[in-house]
Amino acid sequence: MDDIIASYPVDGINRVKRRHDRGFYDHATVHALLDAAALCHVSYVVDRQPYCTPTLFWREGTRLFWHGSSASRMLRNQSGGQPVCLTVTHLDSLVLARCGFNHSADYRSVMAFGHARLVEDPEEKRRALVMMVDRFFTGRTAHLRLSTEQEIKATAVVSMDIERASAKIRAKGVVDEDYDLPIYAERLPVRMVLGKPEPCPRLMAGVERPTSLNNYGVDRALEKALSEAHVLAYRGDLTRSEP
Amino acid sequence: MDDIIASYPVDGINRVKRRHDRGFYDHATVHALLDAAALCHVSYVVDRQPYCTPTLFWREGTRLFWHGSSASRMLRNQSGGQPVCLTVTHLDSLVLARCGFNHSADYRSVMAFGHARLVEDPEEKRRALVMMVDRFFTGRTAHLRLSTEQEIKATAVVSMDIERASAKIRAKGVVDEDYDLPIYAERLPVRMVLGKPEPCPRLMAGVERPTSLNNYGVDRALEKALSEAHVLAYRGDLTRSEP
Repeated sequence: MDDIIASYPVDGINRVKRRHDRGFYDHATVHALLDAAALCHVSYVVDRQPYCTPTLFWREGTRLFWHGSSASRMLRNQSGGQPVCLTVTHLDSLVLARCGFNHSADYRSVMAFGHARLVEDPEEKRRALVMMVDRFFTGRTAHLRLSTEQEIKATAVVSMDIERASAKIRAKGVVDEDYDLPIYAERLPVRMVLGKPEPCPRLMAGVERPTSLNNYGVDRALEKALSEAHVLAYRGDLTRSEP
Repeated sequence: MDDIIASYPVDGINRVKRRHDRGFYDHATVHALLDAAALCHVSYVVDRQPYCTPTLFWREGTRLFWHGSSASRMLRNQSGGQPVCLTVTHLDSLVLARCGFNHSADYRSVMAFGHARLVEDPEEKRRALVMMVDRFFTGRTAHLRLSTEQEIKATAVVSMDIERASAKIRAKGVVDEDYDLPIYAERLPVRMVLGKPEPCPRLMAGVERPTSLNNYGVDRALEKALSEAHVLAYRGDLTRSEP
């Protein structure tokens, strides 16, 4: 691999040990897989008990953000520098081979490791609450009702600098050693797609779907829409906040 | 709730504290959400560092199974009764509201808690390796090349009795307090669907897709196919093993 490619450092925590041919550590691969997702699973430990909580998240540079209620257990236990692992998985197929052992799945996943910290600086928090919406829906915050102080207070935002990360990719379908046996084998693709938008039944008369949501079209792959939205959100001014 | 409904016990670990109206503990709800998934995320702890690893899994009664290489870190650290949390999440929509605070997502998730143990009994392991395939693809193992001793040895199977579990469901789309504002709001549905099967390019002449795979049809929801396959796998003889 070319030395000038920015990569996450690799050590015993994030090295892909098994099937190391499936492992990637460069920013481009890791970030692309993160930006193609809205949902992640965050692991953290409370009193030696691991928890695995699904949540929406987004990436900004080499930092990840997620949020929740200020009262939530997850966020209370992720506010003071606790170690966490945030994982994103795109399932691409189920693989049916000619023996049990070679059954598999195609997937693309990222495990990102770091320490979670509450975003406490008011300006940083305000900006994060904007990007929490605008990262997914381009420029949307500018058209929303302003957040109240109470809403901002009730929302906790957690961030994590990615200290280590690894991507793991399997994308090869059926790999067998029994091609001379009369057994059916296939790759069965799966994908996450967008359905038909369901406008709020209580929309005011004359309010139309903004064209900025056009990338969220029926039957599109969710990950394409999310990746596009991420590019649009971060190609411009990174410092804007609510009007 | 009716007392005679079988439920998982509830305590500080699995009680849904925030938004407790979204929490369910009964076997029927928890199991249905598990059986509708092939992919889970398993959290475990090694030297105080949490890990969140995606893997395929399946349920049998109140026990969960997953597998991997005998050499994998995850399985080496889940073989001796370590506490784990296995989480399944179905993302159903993104919710665009009239203010940032009410943006949300519809989802159905399960967090299952227990202690992971290596399946070491040879008969139990052999049977688990059959169900690892047959749970997804009805009766498929009977038509496969038999597993070799080496393959069985190279595969580690882990099981976890579900000691505690909670399901959390949000299924209400847009809920706002600003219906009198001229702002567009919608529920944007997402779903995981099956693509067109890709037969192995090296199939022997005359080998056809078995009709038992008919539930995995193009554009079907993956979760429907998985739920159906689970019913078929476990309505019959639970004790069969490889022929």
